[in-house]
Amino acid sequence: MNQVYIDKLIETMKQNNMDAMLISPSAELKFFIGESPMLCERFQGLFIKTDGEMFYVCNLLYGGEMKNFLPETVPVYTWFDGDVMTEVVGKVLEKYGLKGKTIGVNTSAQAFNVLDLMYQTGVTFVSGKKILEEVRIHKTHEELDGLRAAAHLVDEVFKEVLEFVRPGMTEQDVKDFLFEKMTEKGGYDLWAIVACGPNGSYPHYTGSGRTIAEKDILLMDFGCTLNNLCADMTRTVFIGDATEREKELYRIVKDSNEAAEAMVEEGAFIPDIDAAAREVLGRYGYAETLINRVGHGIGYLIHEQPEIKASNPRKLEKGMAFSIEPGIYIAGDIGIRIEDIVVINEKGEREILNKSSKELIILK
Amino acid sequence: MNQVYIDKLIETMKQNNMDAMLISPSAELKFFIGESPMLCERFQGLFIKTDGEMFYVCNLLYGGEMKNFLPETVPVYTWFDGDVMTEVVGKVLEKYGLKGKTIGVNTSAQAFNVLDLMYQTGVTFVSGKKILEEVRIHKTHEELDGLRAAAHLVDEVFKEVLEFVRPGMTEQDVKDFLFEKMTEKGGYDLWAIVACGPNGSYPHYTGSGRTIAEKDILLMDFGCTLNNLCADMTRTVFIGDATEREKELYRIVKDSNEAAEAMVEEGAFIPDIDAAAREVLGRYGYAETLINRVGHGIGYLIHEQPEIKASNPRKLEKGMAFSIEPGIYIAGDIGIRIEDIVVINEKGEREILNKSSKELIILK
Repeated sequence: MNQVYIDKLIETMKQNNMDAMLISPSAELKFFIGESPMLCERFQGLFIKTDGEMFYVCNLLYGGEMKNFLPETVPVYTWFDGDVMTEVVGKVLEKYGLKGKTIGVNTSAQAFNVLDLMYQTGVTFVSGKKILEEVRIHKTHEELDGLRAAAHLVDEVFKEVLEFVRPGMTEQDVKDFLFEKMTEKGGYDLWAIVACGPNGSYPHYTGSGRTIAEKDILLMDFGCTLNNLCADMTRTVFIGDATEREKELYRIVKDSNEAAEAMVEEGAFIPDIDAAAREVLGRYGYAETLINRVGHGIGYLIHEQPEIKASNPRKLEKGMAFSIEPGIYIAGDIGIRIEDIVVINEKGEREILNKSSKELIILK
Repeated sequence: MNQVYIDKLIETMKQNNMDAMLISPSAELKFFIGESPMLCERFQGLFIKTDGEMFYVCNLLYGGEMKNFLPETVPVYTWFDGDVMTEVVGKVLEKYGLKGKTIGVNTSAQAFNVLDLMYQTGVTFVSGKKILEEVRIHKTHEELDGLRAAAHLVDEVFKEVLEFVRPGMTEQDVKDFLFEKMTEKGGYDLWAIVACGPNGSYPHYTGSGRTIAEKDILLMDFGCTLNNLCADMTRTVFIGDATEREKELYRIVKDSNEAAEAMVEEGAFIPDIDAAAREVLGRYGYAETLINRVGHGIGYLIHEQPEIKASNPRKLEKGMAFSIEPGIYIAGDIGIRIEDIVVINEKGEREILNKSSKELIILK
């Protein structure tokens, strides 16, 4: 059990008038207890109360596993498939004095189960996302080292994928290669967006069937978890050749990325960083083509706090870790993104964790 | 757009006093619109109203993709990372007359977003799980054919994995092989539980690190999606040899599986099927070791209606498809499960889709 963070969480819950937190299976549960079971449609999760009491509720089929995962001080209550889940869980919540109380939920909690419980048991559920993220927003030295190692892993894989990619391969071929190489190096919870040609214009493109053609643009946004901490990097490269327009747009995105990264320092106002990236794009008439935030926090989850956006009016502090990833997206036409993970390190200095080149790369 | 099922859904919503349904990215969304985007922490989903009106709400970064996925008759409303999501979405819900109304949510809807929306916009959300599952509970001829093809795929992979498995391999090696073979045959959304030795005693075991030893039991529960329809099968085999106790327990589980499958026919009362499986186990003193339901419905999702359990008092009807998967689970000691997909087919007859042998298999 990660007692340091559990204590921090309890402190933060108290400040926010929350009586307990429900943490469903996820990287977040693993962060607190060291393990996470499979999440199917059967309600389960760890409850952490502000008085320090903890208990776990799950379907009987997970009971044996959860007893192995948890210390004896955390009882496991089970419901059976033949039971009405809300009745069994309702009794447990009542036993722990949670009836009529407010319980936060983490991001993996399923709405249909939480709503059923809320209407049947007289408990109020609210989003616990921000509180859970606040608890781990300042990364320790060990966590920063974990992020460095994860970033190094994807940097190494990027070198290899540049040697691998050839016209005639599909996006799926490149994805498979990235997965294989990240796995070889100890990565897990793998993901990759591989988008060629106009597909890169959809920032979270999920397809994989297009064949890479000569003169295509190829956007690769990929990452994994290494020892519980996440990596996330994007580079956009050119196959065979790049047009003048493509080179120009690439240079603008690179300038935007570098302008935002140059603003990163302890005490910097987050909206200013977002603005710096947009200002460069705007200078060339591309202000409207950055259709998302400039960055997201990263750590135990791939997306967490601090978000780098205009509507997050806070200052950067020591230990914060986040992406800087401006892009130009013109739907159905072209997409270019350059993304690094950047931290305010132990010395309070800006440190860019990804070392992969951002110079224009044309693969011949 | 799957208009036949949308019309069915609307009918069912009306009968259940629901004003609209929210369907978040998932196989369920794909079922209705043919595609599903990535699901990150940003709220998005399709709203289907009982008056037939539909609209999609998503973050701006998904806007271009969703406009490609949806017909022009379904408008896409976007919110920007810099916006307060609940304000933008609240205005859209108001425009469509949904303020103060009741909206169902599918199983992939995220609690933290749904709760934020509920408190900020004056909409009531409830679980829409059962209604969505009811709409597709009677499989058409084409859907049954899809389930047959998916079952055949895993049957073929099972033959191959029996040739592959050797002592000294890890559970992960076997998982990788299953994934590779399912992919080769056109499967996607792959998953596998591979548990050797005592690990099989945890029905949803998620580990993969144990090395398969001589005389181990090996439980393999795996499946994938093929052309939108799911496969799911479990076989438990023995490495090198099996003890008398293991052979006895295997025979009991096999008898239990066959007794339950023999009860499957049009008009059969579902709790009787659950009871038949348990009765066999109970006869040998193992009534308590079947710690979950005897089966789950299957179709576009791996788990859907009808659940085969005592607390689901309804009759089997033509077109229903479900697993029969009794097991013996003694935590930390031994686990055996045999699972087939069974349907009430077009002629109203029982049809067991998985043809893999259930005889005791000892891999030499």
